[in-house]
Amino acid sequence: MRFISERRLDDGVREREFTLDEIPGILWTPPTASGPTPLILQGHPGDLRRMYPRLAARARHAAAAGYASATLELPGAGDRPRSAAADQARVDLRRAIQAGEPVADEIVERLVLPLVDQAVPEWRVALDALLALPEIDGPVGYAGGVIAIGVRLAVVEPRISAAALFAGSYVPRVMFEEARQVTIPLLVLLQWDDEGNDRQLALDLFDAFGSREKTLHANMGGHTGIPAHEGDDGNRFFARHLRAAG
Amino acid sequence: MRFISERRLDDGVREREFTLDEIPGILWTPPTASGPTPLILQGHPGDLRRMYPRLAARARHAAAAGYASATLELPGAGDRPRSAAADQARVDLRRAIQAGEPVADEIVERLVLPLVDQAVPEWRVALDALLALPEIDGPVGYAGGVIAIGVRLAVVEPRISAAALFAGSYVPRVMFEEARQVTIPLLVLLQWDDEGNDRQLALDLFDAFGSREKTLHANMGGHTGIPAHEGDDGNRFFARHLRAAG
Repeated sequence: MRFISERRLDDGVREREFTLDEIPGILWTPPTASGPTPLILQGHPGDLRRMYPRLAARARHAAAAGYASATLELPGAGDRPRSAAADQARVDLRRAIQAGEPVADEIVERLVLPLVDQAVPEWRVALDALLALPEIDGPVGYAGGVIAIGVRLAVVEPRISAAALFAGSYVPRVMFEEARQVTIPLLVLLQWDDEGNDRQLALDLFDAFGSREKTLHANMGGHTGIPAHEGDDGNRFFARHLRAAG
Repeated sequence: MRFISERRLDDGVREREFTLDEIPGILWTPPTASGPTPLILQGHPGDLRRMYPRLAARARHAAAAGYASATLELPGAGDRPRSAAADQARVDLRRAIQAGEPVADEIVERLVLPLVDQAVPEWRVALDALLALPEIDGPVGYAGGVIAIGVRLAVVEPRISAAALFAGSYVPRVMFEEARQVTIPLLVLLQWDDEGNDRQLALDLFDAFGSREKTLHANMGGHTGIPAHEGDDGNRFFARHLRAAG
């Protein structure tokens, strides 16, 4: 992990860009640590530059509650080499949605499974490097999308203690078996009228999760319309599960 | 409204039993008022004596955030005259649930519609009396079940500014048209594995509500298993909508 830039945001949050095996990432740490600093991995759909405003807002909100946040560019997104197969799957997905057709699971599998297979090991390597920093103590939560990445991480990565997952992207039905293996506490966010998502699929996925403690928060509005109070709810969710685990 | 008893609970909350046209009710007010005191009508499925522990816990939690709470016995419940027709409908409902059969809408209509028709005017009369008390300022919220009573109240009673509805009881499909007329902010609680409720009906009802601001919180566990953090979420929901409206 190599830090390539550092700045203080106006609220005192320290923001550092890094690369890890040539993958870009960003780390945000709270201005002052009072007690242990848990880490939240901030998930997103890819392209850090486009996602920066939303990711930084989430990280600053989390920092105000004492959490460090980190994120990593996804395979095939931003400045990373594109995948022709994934781009084709994305085109097929958009075409189906725009035509008002049901999205074939085969398309979702082509889009999501290779992404999950490649991204999850990268996030785990990043986790090794992040937890080796003296200013981060853990425990670790995962927040946001891509929900399929969150599902896989929750199953394979024992250092993740809780996840606030944004059900705003497709999950192939073959991954429901993995969802049943998830046992950590979950907060699942669903935008009820998300134009690019399948509400019933999200409800079925919520039902499938094996966790004893799982909560679904559904709100009105489209994909980007998550109300501000959900940021506070997310912090309180992590306070219940990361602070207790720490 | 005639007060018939008064006591202080150990946290300083003032609890008064009253009767209103021979209908029993309970009023809880915070120990000290710092600013205006909004009112939350605490809904329940009937039988105040049986429901007292849960209602008092909710009222005390609300009082800690500065809210007064009041509740009223439902028609046909507790010491009020029973309705043979409602009792028969309740038997038919339980029989269908225990047999694992779909609950016919006709049964739900027989059980719920007369209850709503009778209870809602009673709660409105109680609201007149409660808002005439100097220690209660408003605005007014409705919390809990019976959800069909909450729906009707939200439509016909303009003094109710927000509602935290517990989707833990059946709503006849004929009331979905009323649900579409609801425009106040809603927080809908759903117990995902509620043994005596229909999850899909609850999701369809949430979808039907006309409110621009509506949030669904679904949690694991049965009918009585609502997690404690939902009490805090309810207070924050009312803080956003009642304090702002006041």
